[in-house]
Amino acid sequence: MDKELKELEENIGKVPMILQKWAKEDPEMEKFVLALDKGVWGDGALSKQTKKIIAICVAAALRDRHAVRAQAAGASALGVNYDEVEEALRVTFLLAGMPAYTYGRTAIDDFMK
Amino acid sequence: MDKELKELEENIGKVPMILQKWAKEDPEMEKFVLALDKGVWGDGALSKQTKKIIAICVAAALRDRHAVRAQAAGASALGVNYDEVEEALRVTFLLAGMPAYTYGRTAIDDFMK
Amino acid sequence: MDKELKELEENIGKVPMILQKWAKEDPEMEKFVLALDKGVWGDGALSKQTKKIIAICVAAALRDRHAVRAQAAGASALGVNYDEVEEALRVTFLLAGMPAYTYGRTAIDDFMK
Amino acid sequence: MDKELKELEENIGKVPMILQKWAKEDPEMEKFVLALDKGVWGDGALSKQTKKIIAICVAAALRDRHAVRAQAAGASALGVNYDEVEEALRVTFLLAGMPAYTYGRTAIDDFMK
Amino acid sequence: MDKELKELEENIGKVPMILQKWAKEDPEMEKFVLALDKGVWGDGALSKQTKKIIAICVAAALRDRHAVRAQAAGASALGVNYDEVEEALRVTFLLAGMPAYTYGRTAIDDFMK
Amino acid sequence: MDKELKELEENIGKVPMILQKWAKEDPEMEKFVLALDKGVWGDGALSKQTKKIIAICVAAALRDRHAVRAQAAGASALGVNYDEVEEALRVTFLLAGMPAYTYGRTAIDDFMK
Repeated sequence: MDKELKELEENIGKVPMILQKWAKEDPEMEKFVLALDKGVWGDGALSKQTKKIIAICVAAALRDRHAVRAQAAGASALGVNYDEVEEALRVTFLLAGMPAYTYGRTAIDDFMK
Repeated sequence: MDKELKELEENIGKVPMILQKWAKEDPEMEKFVLALDKGVWGDGALSKQTKKIIAICVAAALRDRHAVRAQAAGASALGVNYDEVEEALRVTFLLAGMPAYTYGRTAIDDFMK
Repeated sequence: MDKELKELEENIGKVPMILQKWAKEDPEMEKFVLALDKGVWGDGALSKQTKKIIAICVAAALRDRHAVRAQAAGASALGVNYDEVEEALRVTFLLAGMPAYTYGRTAIDDFMK
Repeated sequence: MDKELKELEENIGKVPMILQKWAKEDPEMEKFVLALDKGVWGDGALSKQTKKIIAICVAAALRDRHAVRAQAAGASALGVNYDEVEEALRVTFLLAGMPAYTYGRTAIDDFMK
Repeated sequence: MDKELKELEENIGKVPMILQKWAKEDPEMEKFVLALDKGVWGDGALSKQTKKIIAICVAAALRDRHAVRAQAAGASALGVNYDEVEEALRVTFLLAGMPAYTYGRTAIDDFMK
Repeated sequence: MDKELKELEENIGKVPMILQKWAKEDPEMEKFVLALDKGVWGDGALSKQTKKIIAICVAAALRDRHAVRAQAAGASALGVNYDEVEEALRVTFLLAGMPAYTYGRTAIDDFMK
């Protein structure tokens, strides 16, 4: 894995397969996404742990199976714990419905237990 | 405002108009929502400030003008600051697109500046 | 209003402004939509009242302010009553979140009370 | 299965796996969801059969594969028949597009035929 | 395959399995959908190739795995090339987020490479 | 308006108010968005006119009133004509439902007629 992907991994816990594939096959796309990621994930007013929790909740609210699993896959490596995400997902429950919660809950049960 | 709404206000910063209306006109609905809210908003593994930020990001991701404004309206009262939410909304940008970010940004520009 | 729009009005309670506009300005679009509407709204295995309730719930779940109001506007004319729709919208609450319910509830409070 | 899950099964036809799992492993979550379900599914102004049809249409409109299958799985046990749901899903077609209809149609073809 | 499905295939590249199934089992539904398709896909102010690209972008924006794959499956047969769709999907990225782009990108990597 | 916003205006027809505001008040955000826009809008395998049409269709499919109007506002300046967009929006109708079409149609009726 090259240096920039390694830095990204420190921010998000686990670099999704598709980004690794793009890094090999499509350097323009990789550069584009890495620039975007840099503006999003680093510590700032919020810690990267809090941003990871938000990402799981947003992906769950959008009922996006791939995104929610990609986000959940890196959470433990960042030191986020299961109970924090479960509690956060209740906000998703209230705002996006029980099945949206279930998307998130299933992902963290698979990756964070 | 009755006692339970007051408690809710401590957790979410500002009780939306519609909940106040339901509390007056539709006690069954009020009870139903207050029970749900109790399981969602209180301090626990996450602070209520973090939950509020998540709620704004989820509502923005869903492009829900009413929900995002209802959430943003109470954020300052809880001690959440503008920069935290703006940074959190970048996660929404990445996962849900620039117009979703704009929903959130417009709401916090109106209510938190 | 021409004959086909009148028939549609019997099925959905109130023909939305935009369909009336299309009927005048864009006959191809009107024909297209009327054909679609015929396959959807008439009594069959379900009554048109039940279909109207479903339409309000679906439009609310999609957080579509225009569609939910367009559907709610015709409900009373079909003999659908407020309590039926409010109860139906609780299904939307469970599956799509409290703000989705609020979209529907606001529309029926405006048009069915 | 405990008594409360049995009562829920009478209202929705089939209790989803995840609720059965929560009932075993996470009693707080179970209580939370059962309270919510009680306010939603019982006979009232609408029959539980009509609510089930609405739930399938809403889940299909949200393109939620898991929710639409979870809802469809219990429909026959409640006495809902295939033709009613298929006709209801045409409302979803009009309001949410042909692929949304297809989500619902595929689910009822799998569970109700 | 009957004559009308053949004509549709010329416009969209590949008729989805479900339409072929409906054509056999549910002639009313088939007629309904074919009428709708006729008003949508043919050459007009836009070529059918451009419409196909739009369809992939819209299905990706809706995070609809089935629809995006059904659309991508016929693109090459119409003479649409991979680079055009990839570039179009960047619009989806901007408006609907990186995971929406990923839905589209995965589908065209599977069907157009 | 500064040089980079001028270049963007050539690609998208009209720079949305919010981008102009960000350019003044939030230079980091402006840089971030301009970089993203550069990778999206320029002529390439597709013309910028085609990309604009796609953007309107995607924003309409997402029922995003602000985004669809922001996109439609610049279309005429790029030389896109009304009939092309109207025909493109029929794809949105098929994939996302009649109300999604209506979002787009209303925006182009306001800005392109």
